[in-house]
Amino acid sequence: MSEAEVHDVARRGRVAAVGLATATRALKDAALLSMADAIEAAAPAILTANASDVETARQDNTAETLIDRLTLTADRITAMADGLRDVANLADPVGEVVRGYTRPNGLRISQVRVPFGVVAMIYEARPNVTVDAAGLAVKSGNAVLLRGSGSAYHSNLALVQVLADAAEKAGLPSDSIQLVPGTDRSSVSHLLHARGLVDVVIPRGGAGLIEYVVTNSTVPVIETGIGNVHVYVEATADLDMAEKIVVNAKVSRPSVCNSAETVLVHRAVAGEFVPRITSALQAAGVTVHGDPAFAGQSGVVPASDEDWAAEYLSLDMAARVVDSTDQAIEHIRRWSSGHTEAIVTRDLEAANRFVAQVDSAAVMVNASTRFTDGAEFGFGAEIGISTQKLHARGPMGLPELTSTKWVVYGDGQIR
Amino acid sequence: MSEAEVHDVARRGRVAAVGLATATRALKDAALLSMADAIEAAAPAILTANASDVETARQDNTAETLIDRLTLTADRITAMADGLRDVANLADPVGEVVRGYTRPNGLRISQVRVPFGVVAMIYEARPNVTVDAAGLAVKSGNAVLLRGSGSAYHSNLALVQVLADAAEKAGLPSDSIQLVPGTDRSSVSHLLHARGLVDVVIPRGGAGLIEYVVTNSTVPVIETGIGNVHVYVEATADLDMAEKIVVNAKVSRPSVCNSAETVLVHRAVAGEFVPRITSALQAAGVTVHGDPAFAGQSGVVPASDEDWAAEYLSLDMAARVVDSTDQAIEHIRRWSSGHTEAIVTRDLEAANRFVAQVDSAAVMVNASTRFTDGAEFGFGAEIGISTQKLHARGPMGLPELTSTKWVVYGDGQIR
Repeated sequence: MSEAEVHDVARRGRVAAVGLATATRALKDAALLSMADAIEAAAPAILTANASDVETARQDNTAETLIDRLTLTADRITAMADGLRDVANLADPVGEVVRGYTRPNGLRISQVRVPFGVVAMIYEARPNVTVDAAGLAVKSGNAVLLRGSGSAYHSNLALVQVLADAAEKAGLPSDSIQLVPGTDRSSVSHLLHARGLVDVVIPRGGAGLIEYVVTNSTVPVIETGIGNVHVYVEATADLDMAEKIVVNAKVSRPSVCNSAETVLVHRAVAGEFVPRITSALQAAGVTVHGDPAFAGQSGVVPASDEDWAAEYLSLDMAARVVDSTDQAIEHIRRWSSGHTEAIVTRDLEAANRFVAQVDSAAVMVNASTRFTDGAEFGFGAEIGISTQKLHARGPMGLPELTSTKWVVYGDGQIR
Repeated sequence: MSEAEVHDVARRGRVAAVGLATATRALKDAALLSMADAIEAAAPAILTANASDVETARQDNTAETLIDRLTLTADRITAMADGLRDVANLADPVGEVVRGYTRPNGLRISQVRVPFGVVAMIYEARPNVTVDAAGLAVKSGNAVLLRGSGSAYHSNLALVQVLADAAEKAGLPSDSIQLVPGTDRSSVSHLLHARGLVDVVIPRGGAGLIEYVVTNSTVPVIETGIGNVHVYVEATADLDMAEKIVVNAKVSRPSVCNSAETVLVHRAVAGEFVPRITSALQAAGVTVHGDPAFAGQSGVVPASDEDWAAEYLSLDMAARVVDSTDQAIEHIRRWSSGHTEAIVTRDLEAANRFVAQVDSAAVMVNASTRFTDGAEFGFGAEIGISTQKLHARGPMGLPELTSTKWVVYGDGQIR
């Protein structure tokens, strides 16, 4: 795709954004429900398109786990439709007054949530992100440009056609939901340089994709989701609780960004806890990559700096014994990706210090790192988990898809 | 400066940021008061350094207005010191709980303001920005990297030495306040690529500087301050009020970003208002660049697209007659930089439509655009005026120099 073609798509999005910004909640919710019904009704065509993507992926010898992520079924389509219905039930973030006051000179000032305008989502493999992102964009009054993976191109094309058509029939502006055409990387690059046409780019995917987007974009980016996550078992920890939390944080869903990758154990409890957590993790199928203190345990692989840096996203866990809470914090400061870290402790001072000094989007005391999640935080929907400090940090809900505008009423005031 | 040298400065800032993040308000305020006293005490040395910058600027035939911005006096040093004392009196944004609640599973979740970490300020000419930025950074718990203009290098060097020394003696970490050494553009470029070392870059200056920073930075940027600002005089406007507002918005301080650059007049009142506002503006020394409807007035220069696009920052104003509020909104949508626009009207529906459909950081009804300002909004201090939609939009106060962190307390919860 040429730059002109991609920027034309963005320009159509800008026109749609004008109407979307003032669409009522009633209209947006009606559109979401129509979109849900439409993808269920169009399931046969969507499944056919998806089958052709899956066929190509098989011919390319794609890994089975990726094929599973790519594959749609009737049940998965119903789940996507139900997701849209859930979004219809959420509060509308647009129009919320964030702050408001009257100045001594009588000016009435309020800061009001407004949509960004045009949001571009760049993502990998799973076609359900297409539906999710379209739903969240509609609800927050943003026009959306969807750039999924080339491997899901036909699935995304079929889904967006159905979604866009249903949204327009329900009364939303045309081009509210658009697929960025083309499957080559140049179309991504053109999107990233559409400054003034696209208000924000949100990449969702692996480290490579996110790095590419952040390094190349002149449009503002919200970074999401790399998680090198730590659990620190402090000297006073309840070791039963610590074992439960470490195993849950690692094993309950190893492929997601809030799963733990490293356990740090205070030397004072290492004698008891190192053999115990090693066995428990191994019993759950985990390969432990340990420092010298762990390496004495049977089956433990010696850890190197690569292990401290790794976001395994698999049944592997790095493990280290530390001399103090300060050393644990220092280890986290050096190796963490700033997503989530947890401490297990009964000591108030240690908990306070850990919370104050660990610089991550979420810091947990006596809870599994798996709770860093939009649904678990009560947001109802999640756009992703931001690991940057600008605009949004941690799980992002609908309000994080908005900006604000200052509205000032006077009766002739001048300076 | 080599990249390694600039990144070493950033790395020292990161170390300082760890201590700054947990500094108490009492400590930060004491440091601010010491910094204020110190620059007053060091006034002779600062003035000597400044005199050498001014001398060089004169040899380079720098324009008199720029030399005025560059020049320090004993009074200006006292004003900068008083600015630091004012910042000491402001509330500390760090530690504010933005949201907090308990989930059904008993997890206690709160979102707490924390400093960004390391903030880089890139700015032009005026040495007072050095003192301002250092004060706001200290108060918000951020380490700051200051990269002023080459023309103010000796002044900035002298100021930062005094400020950094006073901050350290008061108990803040060393390297809390640093000048980025060197005066060539390569040091700016190295700063903009210090991703992972610098958390946010804030450029303050002209369009060229801001464009350079936004296009080249891989560090997140907060864009500030370009203002192509409009005042729309609607058909029902009180024309006395309209005249006062237009003249004030243009004339009270033409060189700042919230001053108006274009007046749009509804055709229904053009017969009376066009001659009236033309005379009033001309009487105040303004050159009017008008569309054909204005061009009939004596002394009006015909306007071209360049005038609709211009941020004059001078005693020039573009002027156009429009057929409707829709056409006024369309003109603004096409030409505005998204800073501030105002409507003068007595019609509720027109006011509502203008507020809803104009996509700018601030929208005023019956007030001068000059009110888009941190002090006028009651913030006490202003970092700049953001014209982007991510993170901060409009005047930025101390809270806009912070991020947030999610803190979660449990008693053993797992998923």
